[in-house]
Amino acid sequence: MRSSDRKNTDMRAIKITADINKFAMGSALIELGDTKVHCTASVAFTVPRFLRHSNPAQGWLTAEYAMLPSATPTRTKRERPQVGGRSQEIQRLIGRSLRGVIDLHKCPDLTITVDCDVIQADGGTRTAAINGAYVALRMATDKLYRSGRIDSDPIHHKVAAISVGIKDGEYLCDLDYEEDSNIDLDMNVVMTDDGGILEVQGTAENRSFNKEQLAGIIDIAAASIRNIYQCQEQALANLRND
Amino acid sequence: MRSSDRKNTDMRAIKITADINKFAMGSALIELGDTKVHCTASVAFTVPRFLRHSNPAQGWLTAEYAMLPSATPTRTKRERPQVGGRSQEIQRLIGRSLRGVIDLHKCPDLTITVDCDVIQADGGTRTAAINGAYVALRMATDKLYRSGRIDSDPIHHKVAAISVGIKDGEYLCDLDYEEDSNIDLDMNVVMTDDGGILEVQGTAENRSFNKEQLAGIIDIAAASIRNIYQCQEQALANLRND
Amino acid sequence: MRSSDRKNTDMRAIKITADINKFAMGSALIELGDTKVHCTASVAFTVPRFLRHSNPAQGWLTAEYAMLPSATPTRTKRERPQVGGRSQEIQRLIGRSLRGVIDLHKCPDLTITVDCDVIQADGGTRTAAINGAYVALRMATDKLYRSGRIDSDPIHHKVAAISVGIKDGEYLCDLDYEEDSNIDLDMNVVMTDDGGILEVQGTAENRSFNKEQLAGIIDIAAASIRNIYQCQEQALANLRND
Amino acid sequence: MRSSDRKNTDMRAIKITADINKFAMGSALIELGDTKVHCTASVAFTVPRFLRHSNPAQGWLTAEYAMLPSATPTRTKRERPQVGGRSQEIQRLIGRSLRGVIDLHKCPDLTITVDCDVIQADGGTRTAAINGAYVALRMATDKLYRSGRIDSDPIHHKVAAISVGIKDGEYLCDLDYEEDSNIDLDMNVVMTDDGGILEVQGTAENRSFNKEQLAGIIDIAAASIRNIYQCQEQALANLRND
Amino acid sequence: MRSSDRKNTDMRAIKITADINKFAMGSALIELGDTKVHCTASVAFTVPRFLRHSNPAQGWLTAEYAMLPSATPTRTKRERPQVGGRSQEIQRLIGRSLRGVIDLHKCPDLTITVDCDVIQADGGTRTAAINGAYVALRMATDKLYRSGRIDSDPIHHKVAAISVGIKDGEYLCDLDYEEDSNIDLDMNVVMTDDGGILEVQGTAENRSFNKEQLAGIIDIAAASIRNIYQCQEQALANLRND
Amino acid sequence: MRSSDRKNTDMRAIKITADINKFAMGSALIELGDTKVHCTASVAFTVPRFLRHSNPAQGWLTAEYAMLPSATPTRTKRERPQVGGRSQEIQRLIGRSLRGVIDLHKCPDLTITVDCDVIQADGGTRTAAINGAYVALRMATDKLYRSGRIDSDPIHHKVAAISVGIKDGEYLCDLDYEEDSNIDLDMNVVMTDDGGILEVQGTAENRSFNKEQLAGIIDIAAASIRNIYQCQEQALANLRND
Repeated sequence: MRSSDRKNTDMRAIKITADINKFAMGSALIELGDTKVHCTASVAFTVPRFLRHSNPAQGWLTAEYAMLPSATPTRTKRERPQVGGRSQEIQRLIGRSLRGVIDLHKCPDLTITVDCDVIQADGGTRTAAINGAYVALRMATDKLYRSGRIDSDPIHHKVAAISVGIKDGEYLCDLDYEEDSNIDLDMNVVMTDDGGILEVQGTAENRSFNKEQLAGIIDIAAASIRNIYQCQEQALANLRND
Repeated sequence: MRSSDRKNTDMRAIKITADINKFAMGSALIELGDTKVHCTASVAFTVPRFLRHSNPAQGWLTAEYAMLPSATPTRTKRERPQVGGRSQEIQRLIGRSLRGVIDLHKCPDLTITVDCDVIQADGGTRTAAINGAYVALRMATDKLYRSGRIDSDPIHHKVAAISVGIKDGEYLCDLDYEEDSNIDLDMNVVMTDDGGILEVQGTAENRSFNKEQLAGIIDIAAASIRNIYQCQEQALANLRND
Repeated sequence: MRSSDRKNTDMRAIKITADINKFAMGSALIELGDTKVHCTASVAFTVPRFLRHSNPAQGWLTAEYAMLPSATPTRTKRERPQVGGRSQEIQRLIGRSLRGVIDLHKCPDLTITVDCDVIQADGGTRTAAINGAYVALRMATDKLYRSGRIDSDPIHHKVAAISVGIKDGEYLCDLDYEEDSNIDLDMNVVMTDDGGILEVQGTAENRSFNKEQLAGIIDIAAASIRNIYQCQEQALANLRND
Repeated sequence: MRSSDRKNTDMRAIKITADINKFAMGSALIELGDTKVHCTASVAFTVPRFLRHSNPAQGWLTAEYAMLPSATPTRTKRERPQVGGRSQEIQRLIGRSLRGVIDLHKCPDLTITVDCDVIQADGGTRTAAINGAYVALRMATDKLYRSGRIDSDPIHHKVAAISVGIKDGEYLCDLDYEEDSNIDLDMNVVMTDDGGILEVQGTAENRSFNKEQLAGIIDIAAASIRNIYQCQEQALANLRND
Repeated sequence: MRSSDRKNTDMRAIKITADINKFAMGSALIELGDTKVHCTASVAFTVPRFLRHSNPAQGWLTAEYAMLPSATPTRTKRERPQVGGRSQEIQRLIGRSLRGVIDLHKCPDLTITVDCDVIQADGGTRTAAINGAYVALRMATDKLYRSGRIDSDPIHHKVAAISVGIKDGEYLCDLDYEEDSNIDLDMNVVMTDDGGILEVQGTAENRSFNKEQLAGIIDIAAASIRNIYQCQEQALANLRND
Repeated sequence: MRSSDRKNTDMRAIKITADINKFAMGSALIELGDTKVHCTASVAFTVPRFLRHSNPAQGWLTAEYAMLPSATPTRTKRERPQVGGRSQEIQRLIGRSLRGVIDLHKCPDLTITVDCDVIQADGGTRTAAINGAYVALRMATDKLYRSGRIDSDPIHHKVAAISVGIKDGEYLCDLDYEEDSNIDLDMNVVMTDDGGILEVQGTAENRSFNKEQLAGIIDIAAASIRNIYQCQEQALANLRND
């Protein structure tokens, strides 16, 4: 049995609050259990050099991921002079996941930077970051569209993510830090709202796994991800009603 | 007249919430108008090399200051590969101010790292950081004392800080970002609760000032700082009552 | 139809030559089509700080991945001052894959560094690197065992990897650079010789995929990986016969 | 009593030699007791990016501060890869002080870089740097004006600086290294020749101070600074007579 | 007597294989005893900023030198964040030597980057690099000329290099790693095929030397370098016959 | 004819002033024409890690070379984050030259750091640095010996250096910056006072040279270097007489 009376296939309590930043075009604080990630989407009206002369014109979206030093049980040093390997891996995943649901040709001449800053880390920061970042991005593109800076809605799907693990042959959904430390297999699944998979990343920690388990994981992830869409929509709806 | 019906000698609304982090030994979120700083005090049971063999033994306290990229009206790049000059100046000020009220000989063999991460920046981030950091530090030393890791309370004074400016000959207390951009003189004052001054830093932006103005600034700062002590005490009292 | 008369489920010609370096304890050059990776395993008789006092004692294995500047169609700058995000991602994958088949408790007090330097890059460098690195590692642990530096064979499984993609609904095994540039889904699969999966990493480039496709990919990967084991074994056998 | 028969309100012997560099547009060597700083003002006919399109056009002035490794009793490492926090703080102070007396709108399209390299450090290097840098700057702007590169004299005031400390309740002017190590309060004061204050920076090291002491410090600083103006003028006069 | 029955004035077995890289415009693998260097010449159709507006127009040639970590008896760390002093010295030598035999005014608007990556290091890597790099460069300029990207052959001489040492008064040609470790004088000589010297670099390790010895070294170097030209020509001839 | 009525085989006016720094154990300012280099030798009572356990014990000597930004006709940026290739090459040369005349086994457990900071650069900075550094080193070892920190004089030879060039077939001794910019061959020669050569470094800029010219250069260098020894001795003698 997991701690906190959670069933194996339950994800933790999730709460997304949109528009938590005065300056960024879109923003959301996501709380997934004790994990908290501050997500913002900032827009600059320029594109990186490698897209300057692309034809047809297209915009760009990039993500950065970092932790506050006090986000972890033992204080983590700020990543200087350079982003660490783990953070690079995560911010590349966030960027790919969001680019998977936005048509950047509909955002010519602008760059959206999504910042995911982990305020508190209790496992699942990369999936929480994707879930919160989608809300921040959605807010930002809505504003761009309403203000006429872009001509059509560039987002063609919702996106959300969840981790599913296997421990002693049992599936465990949405691993917290302690569970993650003792898991046999840790898989992150990113899906769109038509049920398609955008990304899977799974690593066997102690024992290898098989394709039947892989399929089982996808099913569990799909169920949780449907809940996350609702939570994302609610956060955005609250915002529109303000 | 300032925006928001604030009188020239009024500081902005201030709110400090203690214990906002699951992992750090002490923590506080300070809101000073629209400025928000996440302050934590983390403790490691070791000291830097230059204090390894100090006699008598003493601990150390150091501060780091950073901004989330989305804290500013235009997104600020993360400071890599190195901390920028302004951040260095600020984190050195925070460290000196806190070291001014703690007896590190009463904290042998431990290092307290205070992290001040600006969530939103609307002027006065360095003074807000000192005010919030004091609460985080106080929480941390209380826990160290209660748990027997240190033998006596090492903090001998409260410390708080405020900025006071001069514009067209008028004093302005607690400058926000817009006021700060057009000021003639910007002074930061750090004081202890016996009325002593720990640090003054003042820079004439457009025209020089004189010693009578310097004295006037100290008076205004002292009045605001008394309010800040109350706010700090309230945050700590709420915590003890929980 | 693919170029070079390759069937969709065929991998490219693979050739592994062991013992190609005078100094490293283990070494192999792997050629996978036009991709060439120089793999070595070097041993140092010390462990990183975080394992100094581990109980029971264990050794460590780490991997580094880099490209010669001339490995790519357009010259690639050397990664300075820091390893790029993509290289970090790859070298972390190589390290995890090899650690997945070695019992580091059987290698106390030593660190194995696997270097994978891409001499020529035509797609699939990360899977080629894993396949060649296994041979270099196997050579190194054999020498350690024969010389009495370790007491038992620490490697409990063979490991190999292959990429499988999906293009217009068709599976394509072992993508070369050109195929990789236009693929809908690119998946890397790392497996052990008991048929277990150690790692999957898949990214939808243009359209999302489903769990049936995921299962299909595993089947194709498994078939190719069985061929790779034979090639690895042949390289090691040639060596022993010299 | 201080060492060297200096009265508490006396500054150390000061000597400024102008035009000590063949290449820089302005230069001065300042000796303040045993402290020696090599100051130069170099001019480039371009402005930093953030001023490229300023309207009205304006130039820029920036300062750099560094120490020769052998300037200090124990050899100091060169600051690489980055400028240290203390040097950043000092060079920012030098830059602000000089910008406080020059009208950069009278220097369109050019950047003046002031380099202050400490040859020998015996306390007071930041104030010595400001005093010497003013002479180098004055030389450089005189040359720019005489050669017609600028249309009018951009310097509207003289500037000079001095440190004043408090030890056991007594004021001490122009602290040397040994005095600085045991001081209760160390204040740096930068003033213009109309008696105005440009910058104050004061830090209580052991005990806090009050506003009466602050006023006392300003008086002592003002007296010394009047001497420094004479020394600066003499250095420039010698130059013109050559 | 040297190891391996080599006479003192003999260089080691040398083998150059041209065209060993699919992507670079020119390439060669040079083996000099157990030393192996992978040399490529890549061409970009742009020039560095400092040559942008040169009149008459000219191209540029630059060299980079690095070692694979496993090239040395003890694994060498990759040079990050920066190129080490020794590598800088060597790559500057390679660049100067090649620029000494090419007329860059005949290569306007293009930059040739020569990469010398040491696969295995057993002494003499810098001279091996020059010898192999010449072949790669020759291949690249031939292709540029044949394809009409340049109007005439820019290479006006062949260039080759060899080391000669002195040990106990005896000359030793082409030092391997072990010999190099105990030498009294180590000299590198770069010559063109008209017998002229392009560069000498000699360092006394234990005892100083005189000008007669310097002359003797030049004679021995000249003889070996004539052999190297033949080897370079053979590699290029094989290529043309393919 | 050279500027300034200098004959081709004349070096420029040379002046060495010893003991110009209050803190370093040895120091000298060398002026060679308009080139000025500030040389110091600092001593630390420790050795680098690679010599910690050397048997027999030995000390270490290392050199650093840098330019003040204003040392050159156009201001040179400070070398950050890293030492540039040219400076590395020069500081390695200075270190080797000095290590060539000192027996480090006579200096166990200490490290001498020689800093050569170019105050003004008009050609020949590397040879000036060696000449001045020898005086600083000599002062430092004399003090170490007199104070009993070392048991015998570790310096067994004097060392000095000079550049000699060839222009249109004529030898030119001690090139200044302008001459150096148009030279056919630039050679630096480092010699000991027994007439031995410690190091030669020569680069053909426009046309190659031959061994007869090499011999001619050595003769000219030797004559100038004899003058430099006298100048070094005079600087040290003045010191002893003070």
